[in-house]
Amino acid sequence: MKIVETFAEARFARRGLVGFVPTLGFVHEGHLSLIKRAAAENETVLVSLFVNPLQFGPGEDFDTYPRQLERDADLIAGAGADVLFAPALAEMYPEPALTEVSVPTLAEHLDGIERPEHFRGVATVVTKFLAGLQPDRAYFGRKDGQQLSIISRLVFDLSIPVRIIGCPTVREPDGLALSSRNVYLSPDQRQQALALSKGLMAAADLVDAGERDSRALIECVRVAGTNVDFSYVRLVDRRTVQPVGRLSQNAFLAVAARVGPARLIDNIHVDFDTGSPEVDRGIRLTEPSVLYQDR
Amino acid sequence: MKIVETFAEARFARRGLVGFVPTLGFVHEGHLSLIKRAAAENETVLVSLFVNPLQFGPGEDFDTYPRQLERDADLIAGAGADVLFAPALAEMYPEPALTEVSVPTLAEHLDGIERPEHFRGVATVVTKFLAGLQPDRAYFGRKDGQQLSIISRLVFDLSIPVRIIGCPTVREPDGLALSSRNVYLSPDQRQQALALSKGLMAAADLVDAGERDSRALIECVRVAGTNVDFSYVRLVDRRTVQPVGRLSQNAFLAVAARVGPARLIDNIHVDFDTGSPEVDRGIRLTEPSVLYQDR
Repeated sequence: MKIVETFAEARFARRGLVGFVPTLGFVHEGHLSLIKRAAAENETVLVSLFVNPLQFGPGEDFDTYPRQLERDADLIAGAGADVLFAPALAEMYPEPALTEVSVPTLAEHLDGIERPEHFRGVATVVTKFLAGLQPDRAYFGRKDGQQLSIISRLVFDLSIPVRIIGCPTVREPDGLALSSRNVYLSPDQRQQALALSKGLMAAADLVDAGERDSRALIECVRVAGTNVDFSYVRLVDRRTVQPVGRLSQNAFLAVAARVGPARLIDNIHVDFDTGSPEVDRGIRLTEPSVLYQDR
Repeated sequence: MKIVETFAEARFARRGLVGFVPTLGFVHEGHLSLIKRAAAENETVLVSLFVNPLQFGPGEDFDTYPRQLERDADLIAGAGADVLFAPALAEMYPEPALTEVSVPTLAEHLDGIERPEHFRGVATVVTKFLAGLQPDRAYFGRKDGQQLSIISRLVFDLSIPVRIIGCPTVREPDGLALSSRNVYLSPDQRQQALALSKGLMAAADLVDAGERDSRALIECVRVAGTNVDFSYVRLVDRRTVQPVGRLSQNAFLAVAARVGPARLIDNIHVDFDTGSPEVDRGIRLTEPSVLYQDR
């Protein structure tokens, strides 16, 4: 795997169809699953590693976000990446970023309420990566459901010639959705955090059993997490991120909660592409995540 | 010249280095000079013709903006374009444009004060053209000075691999800067509008004579246009669009005024690239513009 630090080098290293996986680093099996999928579908797999200050709000964990380039490079290479683009701050923002890309009507819900700058920062940096690297396909995790909706929309609106591919959430053996921020949790908090995925899996069972009413699905998640400080539990349309009353289109049931020092999010996607709803519960690891190997 | 209506066709028609010239149509020698320059510097010249609703404010002339595809196609082909991209509204915006691109700190001055949505609409559609068409160079008139600053900045900020080239303003034999909107002027208003370029040329003479104080330059323009309803007369830095006190960097002296039914803008650029200032007064036609030929 080649490691490059500039957009020009990254573009120059491309051969044939290019699959792109953006990351903030401190990667886990969720990122690695995106890279593996990209490797199966493209001739060049380009992974970016950059902790983007624009998408962290004041008081968030930009300064303390785990940065371990060597560890990350080994894992990313092992998953099949050809090029790792690890720009310094000065390559990404040689001057203050004055340009803003936003999708306000999709960003003003769910996580956008507590993190008003977050999605503008994500949309701006993703547009920059897609414009500057010109991949043919780009892979994002479904765990960041609202982010995936926003990126899909901005690519459509801005006619960026790239296909956005959303991939299943990867979970710990006990169901917890992988997140680099899970390492912030104490064992007790780790246990408490399980309520999110437990509630979502129970709701998935309800959907499989025929339940279509959003209130019933939301109630099911809330009951599983009576001890959890939820920011929201919502069933939303995948294209508009607007609340759905009855489940009859592509949607995701999304939760956010503060557990100790971490703000955790999780969701299940319900796909109506085949006519009848199929619930994507994600993929379970059989062993604990690599996140815990070096600690 | 090939005329195409979709982004995919326009991308497919490219060969070698691609120069791009975006237009709203009803073209004049200003646009044609951009196309000729693009033809001299690139293997494929791609011109877009699209009256972009996003950059017109409420009460502006979107509905009445002159649309004459056949006339425009003849002139654009004659200037050396290889591909004319003339998308229908449904190709550009198959669904409402929810994504916004903006450069707020550069857009909040000058024309952005009277036209708050304008530059967001311009930045959004230009990003879409650059992302969707992937040209190597894109040509813009210096007459739209603030627009050129904003586009240069967004391309820099978003790492879009295109070179933005600003080209001299083209003027009528009497000095009036070409604008498709000049056809809105009555003979009397046409005469009154001359005060803008007269004032700017007088200011250019002052700069050539060594004047560097912005107040003196601005006053010179205002004196030439005592009968004119100026929106602003300002000397601004080209990168920041912030007012300049003493002329010592790349800048432009910009004016806007309402003359009858039209809002007119004009400017002179002062280039410091060679050390000593050079004033770009634009290029004068020897005969009246093609704008008047078919009327």
